[in-house]
Amino acid sequence: MTSSRPDLSTSTATDSARVADVVTAMRAKRPLVQVITNFVSMDLAANLLNAAGASPAMVHDPQEAAEFAGLADAVVANIGTPSPRWADGMLAAASTAHDRGSCWVLDPVAVGATGYRHELAGRLLEHRPTVIRGNAGEILALAGISGASRGVDSAAGVDDVADRAAALAAELGCVVAVTGSSDLVTDGTRALIIDGGDPRAPMITALGCAATALVAACCAACDDPLYGAAGALAMITAGIGRAGARADGPGSLRWRLLDELSTLTADQVAAVTVRS
Amino acid sequence: MTSSRPDLSTSTATDSARVADVVTAMRAKRPLVQVITNFVSMDLAANLLNAAGASPAMVHDPQEAAEFAGLADAVVANIGTPSPRWADGMLAAASTAHDRGSCWVLDPVAVGATGYRHELAGRLLEHRPTVIRGNAGEILALAGISGASRGVDSAAGVDDVADRAAALAAELGCVVAVTGSSDLVTDGTRALIIDGGDPRAPMITALGCAATALVAACCAACDDPLYGAAGALAMITAGIGRAGARADGPGSLRWRLLDELSTLTADQVAAVTVRS
Amino acid sequence: MTSSRPDLSTSTATDSARVADVVTAMRAKRPLVQVITNFVSMDLAANLLNAAGASPAMVHDPQEAAEFAGLADAVVANIGTPSPRWADGMLAAASTAHDRGSCWVLDPVAVGATGYRHELAGRLLEHRPTVIRGNAGEILALAGISGASRGVDSAAGVDDVADRAAALAAELGCVVAVTGSSDLVTDGTRALIIDGGDPRAPMITALGCAATALVAACCAACDDPLYGAAGALAMITAGIGRAGARADGPGSLRWRLLDELSTLTADQVAAVTVRS
Repeated sequence: MTSSRPDLSTSTATDSARVADVVTAMRAKRPLVQVITNFVSMDLAANLLNAAGASPAMVHDPQEAAEFAGLADAVVANIGTPSPRWADGMLAAASTAHDRGSCWVLDPVAVGATGYRHELAGRLLEHRPTVIRGNAGEILALAGISGASRGVDSAAGVDDVADRAAALAAELGCVVAVTGSSDLVTDGTRALIIDGGDPRAPMITALGCAATALVAACCAACDDPLYGAAGALAMITAGIGRAGARADGPGSLRWRLLDELSTLTADQVAAVTVRS
Repeated sequence: MTSSRPDLSTSTATDSARVADVVTAMRAKRPLVQVITNFVSMDLAANLLNAAGASPAMVHDPQEAAEFAGLADAVVANIGTPSPRWADGMLAAASTAHDRGSCWVLDPVAVGATGYRHELAGRLLEHRPTVIRGNAGEILALAGISGASRGVDSAAGVDDVADRAAALAAELGCVVAVTGSSDLVTDGTRALIIDGGDPRAPMITALGCAATALVAACCAACDDPLYGAAGALAMITAGIGRAGARADGPGSLRWRLLDELSTLTADQVAAVTVRS
Repeated sequence: MTSSRPDLSTSTATDSARVADVVTAMRAKRPLVQVITNFVSMDLAANLLNAAGASPAMVHDPQEAAEFAGLADAVVANIGTPSPRWADGMLAAASTAHDRGSCWVLDPVAVGATGYRHELAGRLLEHRPTVIRGNAGEILALAGISGASRGVDSAAGVDDVADRAAALAAELGCVVAVTGSSDLVTDGTRALIIDGGDPRAPMITALGCAATALVAACCAACDDPLYGAAGALAMITAGIGRAGARADGPGSLRWRLLDELSTLTADQVAAVTVRS
């Protein structure tokens, strides 16, 4: 397949306004998000959704995962602590979300680390996620699985990630969100880059997993998942930036983020730099 | 069956003093509470029990759940993230607690959401909980299961909840605790209402689940589960009220609650408004 | 077997310097630690490792536990919320770590409480842990399992724990770390005692479990697990001591500990009292 590298030009007021509108719409809807996630991220993902204005529900078992997906506004499948029974729940919920036409988001945690994660991610991709959210290494590993890349480049630069993320998005017909010191969101033809945050954010375990859950919430409240994903990441970027100004380390950065998200205004979200 | 609506008259100094005495007795006993709860609430439930002066133990697997229930002063069964193996552990522990005559508390999280939760709650009710703690929607859904009500009224008012909670308590021979902006505790003939707290408390995920665990701890330290449940809820109300005076959002409200619970005096608990 | 009670003489500058060197080496290596731990400790263990400068990975399922142990610098097996499937993952990872010659650490949570924990701990011991980290009651219970002691002495004094911990270490050919108001680390012939901390530390649920994970990280970065374990415990002692000076209770003590660990200097670690 051909690579459709997005054009990364200058920032526009329109993009910032659109991501802020997504946040407003998400809070107005208060979407019910079914979060099937790893054990480490449960607490933060649920509290971050609550603080941001969404409604989390951790419903994972095959006995009820598909039934609940029929009620939920969006579904998250996160493979951070996978096991066969949880995988069955993820697959059932993702399948239901796909069939209903509701948003579902894949978080391929450490997909390159073991054969089991590789195989599970491949099975989940068959249910066509609306958005995939990962770090650069995970997105490159996933591109290797999907065929858009030949493998994992652990030392890959940002340009290389942008290229492959766009190719992955185009191939799968989804949005790919790559988070790091800057965040990239692409659907294969369009791309948005979000700058900001705090250098200590990576010390908050599972912040990426919680971001994935907020991406699902925001995509449930707008028609364009490119801006849905960007809205969620801009919200976290704004919150972390404000929290970081007063935090002494990762412990205080975490609770200050929750405090900030609960009172963040649309103007504060719109102040985040969004480049397209 | 006939509805035995409790009489909600004016506050008495006696009730406040009794709930404060429960807290003092709980701390003196430092009860060992076996908490079989959902993955989201594990961290907060354990830390809240520790801060309040009880001793938590998360022991859930059928390999050891019943054996441990033979050692524990109280048992919690919370269906927030249910699965068949965990359900077997809950049923075994609840059965043991019932047979020993020790307190066990049911938290029917989102019981109305799926058929699996409905069925599991029904099986747990057969082991006769000492207390059921839920929000208004959960108590109404449970009343529907038990036969005391025909279904779930999502828009039900406080008066309606009080009526059905009392009927449910009378039918099952247990105490029903309904938490919300105010809390209601009833055994079918008596009722206590606890006022106070902080409007941001619902943004602390799993605070209700943690309250359930503290209800178990307090009931293990007194003879009357109506006052046991009220003591636990008054303790959380006092702690949240004091924490809220200095908190900037749900992140700081949570850790300040733990700080407050660890130093809360009996007088501070007695200052909570308890109406009967 | 004969008891090889360690000689507990006066403090030396050498010991303090060596434990500080361990911390420096750990941060330089940033070891990947596979933490198979209980549900209550997931959040704190991962965040504490991240704040301290290590890299946590919670990978537990038999589908991938052994494969991942082949990548990890160290492995933790913690039996706090055991079940048969998780036990299989622990055994597979411990076996792989042993065969590769990498460090693995056992945390025998509440091993004396149920027959299942007793049996599981016995099976894990067959894979020869590098370090065992527990509280006094757990180490005494484990000594009973191993044969070095006849049972659990719940009212055992520090001298008695030191004696039995040394005997257990000598019998198993490992390091035993006993944490409490002071910490003891012994390999059967040598011993180190670490003083300090904060009396409110026991109210932070799973702090001991998180300490176990940091012991694994530090042992992965030095050749002598006696000093590896002591380095981790000195780091937590220094962090808790500094956090405690400003904390109002267990809630703030926890996040302040994470903040302190993220900026702790080698000199601050070297200032902890280490007696040998």
